[in-house]
Amino acid sequence: MQTNTDSGHNWFSRRQNKERRMSDLSHLVDGSIIPTENIVAAMEQLIKPGDKVVLEGNNQKQADFLSRSLAKVSPDKINNLHMIMPSISRSEHLDLFEMGIARKLDFSFSGPQSLRIGQLMEDGLLEVGAIHTYIELYARLYVDLNPNIALLAGFKADRLGNIYTGPSTEDTPALVEAAAFRDGIVIFQVNEIVDDVSDLPRVDIPASWVDYIVLADQPFFIEPLFTRDPRLITPLQVLMGMMAIKGIYAKHQVQSLNHGIGFNTAAIELLLPTYGESLGLKGKICRHWTLNPHPTLIPAIETGWVESVHCFGTELGMEDYIANRPDVFFTGKDGSMRSNRAFCQLAGQYAVDMFIGSTLQVDGDGNSSTVTRGRLAGFGGAPNMGHDPGGRRHSSPAWLDMKPDDSLLSKGRKLVVQMVETYQDSNKSTFVEELDALAMARDYKMPLAPVMIYASDVTHVLTEEGIAYVYKAESLEQRRAMIAAVAGVTPLGLSQNPEVTAQLRRDGLVAYPEDLGIRRSDASRDLLAASSISDLETWSNGLYKPPAKFRSW
Amino acid sequence: MQTNTDSGHNWFSRRQNKERRMSDLSHLVDGSIIPTENIVAAMEQLIKPGDKVVLEGNNQKQADFLSRSLAKVSPDKINNLHMIMPSISRSEHLDLFEMGIARKLDFSFSGPQSLRIGQLMEDGLLEVGAIHTYIELYARLYVDLNPNIALLAGFKADRLGNIYTGPSTEDTPALVEAAAFRDGIVIFQVNEIVDDVSDLPRVDIPASWVDYIVLADQPFFIEPLFTRDPRLITPLQVLMGMMAIKGIYAKHQVQSLNHGIGFNTAAIELLLPTYGESLGLKGKICRHWTLNPHPTLIPAIETGWVESVHCFGTELGMEDYIANRPDVFFTGKDGSMRSNRAFCQLAGQYAVDMFIGSTLQVDGDGNSSTVTRGRLAGFGGAPNMGHDPGGRRHSSPAWLDMKPDDSLLSKGRKLVVQMVETYQDSNKSTFVEELDALAMARDYKMPLAPVMIYASDVTHVLTEEGIAYVYKAESLEQRRAMIAAVAGVTPLGLSQNPEVTAQLRRDGLVAYPEDLGIRRSDASRDLLAASSISDLETWSNGLYKPPAKFRSW
Repeated sequence: MQTNTDSGHNWFSRRQNKERRMSDLSHLVDGSIIPTENIVAAMEQLIKPGDKVVLEGNNQKQADFLSRSLAKVSPDKINNLHMIMPSISRSEHLDLFEMGIARKLDFSFSGPQSLRIGQLMEDGLLEVGAIHTYIELYARLYVDLNPNIALLAGFKADRLGNIYTGPSTEDTPALVEAAAFRDGIVIFQVNEIVDDVSDLPRVDIPASWVDYIVLADQPFFIEPLFTRDPRLITPLQVLMGMMAIKGIYAKHQVQSLNHGIGFNTAAIELLLPTYGESLGLKGKICRHWTLNPHPTLIPAIETGWVESVHCFGTELGMEDYIANRPDVFFTGKDGSMRSNRAFCQLAGQYAVDMFIGSTLQVDGDGNSSTVTRGRLAGFGGAPNMGHDPGGRRHSSPAWLDMKPDDSLLSKGRKLVVQMVETYQDSNKSTFVEELDALAMARDYKMPLAPVMIYASDVTHVLTEEGIAYVYKAESLEQRRAMIAAVAGVTPLGLSQNPEVTAQLRRDGLVAYPEDLGIRRSDASRDLLAASSISDLETWSNGLYKPPAKFRSW
Repeated sequence: MQTNTDSGHNWFSRRQNKERRMSDLSHLVDGSIIPTENIVAAMEQLIKPGDKVVLEGNNQKQADFLSRSLAKVSPDKINNLHMIMPSISRSEHLDLFEMGIARKLDFSFSGPQSLRIGQLMEDGLLEVGAIHTYIELYARLYVDLNPNIALLAGFKADRLGNIYTGPSTEDTPALVEAAAFRDGIVIFQVNEIVDDVSDLPRVDIPASWVDYIVLADQPFFIEPLFTRDPRLITPLQVLMGMMAIKGIYAKHQVQSLNHGIGFNTAAIELLLPTYGESLGLKGKICRHWTLNPHPTLIPAIETGWVESVHCFGTELGMEDYIANRPDVFFTGKDGSMRSNRAFCQLAGQYAVDMFIGSTLQVDGDGNSSTVTRGRLAGFGGAPNMGHDPGGRRHSSPAWLDMKPDDSLLSKGRKLVVQMVETYQDSNKSTFVEELDALAMARDYKMPLAPVMIYASDVTHVLTEEGIAYVYKAESLEQRRAMIAAVAGVTPLGLSQNPEVTAQLRRDGLVAYPEDLGIRRSDASRDLLAASSISDLETWSNGLYKPPAKFRSW
């Protein structure tokens, strides 16, 4: 036996480092409270060059007081930070790089800022570690991206640091645990500080995980990303929704599901209480949901279609409605929702029958991406929802329906449905020869293309032309023919062989509306259970309070 | 627009039901505290026939006071329960079914009780909902298996119900959240009740998620499942460990990993500071770990190989060692570990390069299972660790090394290594014509066989004969030949064509020890950094306190 222990090794360096930084701060704080006006000075004491910093830009809520404050520190004092952020959503997130405060970025999603990331990379100011899905970014926090600092947002705190995150719990539990339990420094901005824990509606994060709280100069920014106005749903989307319900949901007896965001899936949500009802499907399909609280789901909930909804995050305006539907939503003793993106991502991967969502580009094999050239938009959650989780071992009727043969060694599959119109607009075909993601990979010298959902994971392609049941394809060639058969008058669609398509329809590999007993002329907006935001408000008995931007009355 | 709302619908039925049950209990409780002697009577008030009940039998710790108490309720009052349990570990777990208190079971793992489950099924006393992996069972708690009651275990509570779970946090956060936020009733047994929250080392679960606490009649049961005595490691396992380090870890630059439990992987852990050091690999491989705190990892930690370890659960005897190595382990402000099986499962799926583990049977294609006939042993976590997560989008050098070609549409893969001796004992070949799991599926009329790891997920098969780099196989036939080439003198191994095997070795598809520059005669137990439990204790400077059953001095 050899015992080459370096007995002089210090195994407490992270903790001592944290204690040192905190002790240097004592003159600027009042217990756990950083006075609002001291936040920049406090950051300059607590954060050191090169630190790994988690900043809660997440899908909806933003720790924006903290991000704005971080952008005010002196780059002479704090620089070369390694930022770890679920979502890059605000301009100051990237100002950090322009100013030299930060240098490296690991992230999951960037909507409006995606073009600027590319520019900063070209200018040599920003180095991307990797682009992740949400859940793999959380995962890395526990492995090789462990944060020194976590900057987070909550609704309320008591003076000890117990946190009420409110209905928008979202990413917070996954982010805070990685820092709190590895001697990282945890700072929460909150909208309100109360004296005692008993003054909080409930505790979402215990004070013993939190180092500092700071009252923000204004409530944290939150955006209604999941509201779709029914007025903008087209008859074509109604037709696609009818096909989805009859040709996929009912056919496979889909009990539990996740809807991506968009007008296509909003149409389905609004067709359940009408078209779905007329098919006698209530109680037979769509009983359990993992999704953000889409306002367009209200009519289905009110008519008794929905047994449960577990949410990634919340949606502005839905707070009172959710609090008054605790039989459906996950709520605390205080009545408000508890969302949790990490657990909802788990649920959506391992416990639901189906994912259905839209995309911007689909190639002839069925690979898809929302990436367009120059925009490093990231992945968000779609690749996780839109794949067949190979670690699943329990079955359900829909899952088993995807089993390719009777072998005991064959598995079922999660249904992954791509629901797209063949044209994005009059000039832009959804079906492309090559995904822009490939050009992107070549431009940025990525080892692989940023594909959102791989062909091998897709089970159905649904367009206004029909449904391709691609899980039944016996060869790549047949798969391509099936996709071409529903690609309409796009170049891919025009390449189809009419005889092959006719045979695919006879064999049940492709179904056009008429094959499903659906008349195109029946696909009217009149079938939607709500035709406006105002209708949704009415359905909710006034509990849904649409944000001003969606009001038109 | 139609508004068919059933305006008389009660959306608060779950909450009212909970309030009613709790109010009926007021005479038996003191605030949040159920007096120990009242637990059976309290259960008879709180639990109703047909309830979905989560019971924390998990991998290590057991809410055994609550399970023993539940087995004492009157089956006339409580019957037909639907039990949801990560692990069936104790006899009273199944007594519940024999007595008619419970009827349906959803679970993940059952070690010693697996034979009895099959018997109870045959007797018509137990109906299995499904057998899951841990993480998919948690996932279903948020979808269609939402609990009415959760029976959980913690170390300490204050009088309000704030819980300190101790280093064995494990499954608790995932289980409690599903009940607490959908009007389930949450009951914790604890080893100690303190007056005030400030008397707790830290808070792991806030009181606002907890309904009742009860002082257990004795500390909860916890078993050291992950301790392997180095004395029992054989020279053959040393040889396999050397091949793993040189032919897999070093070859692919594995930075982050999960080790399954067993003597094979224990050998690797003990070879890193010796053989690994001699190859100059320190700091280049095995830096980040997701695994339970194996005592055999102590020498690698002490010699500076290990930067971080995130744990599913804890291991008896390792508490002080962990608390004194906070630079490596995830610990709270109080110093003790925070484990978390849900997050560690996430980390192991989405953030590590490799899983390596043993199994009992491998078929010629590379499918494997630990199932033997009549024993419904369940899956645990191996299928999740041992698969390629299709939702991963970031890359690492090892992951990219599995990329089959240069196409931008090709992905890397997680390394999934099956490490087995060709014979379990002198009569039992590990390589079989057909897995027993298939006979099991036929016996119990399962829709698919309980396969632990599918061939399509395996990248390497490692035996004492050599390594088959099966991720390189270009056909199923070649794959079979590669596996046969390392199957020794098993029937499968004897079926190999020597010329084919020679070619596979020349092509780098199979490597024997000599191909890796390893002499079989060098594979001595002397290479192990520790040869006994006592050695491990010495390495730890007395911080590791081996449980009595592992002490022999």
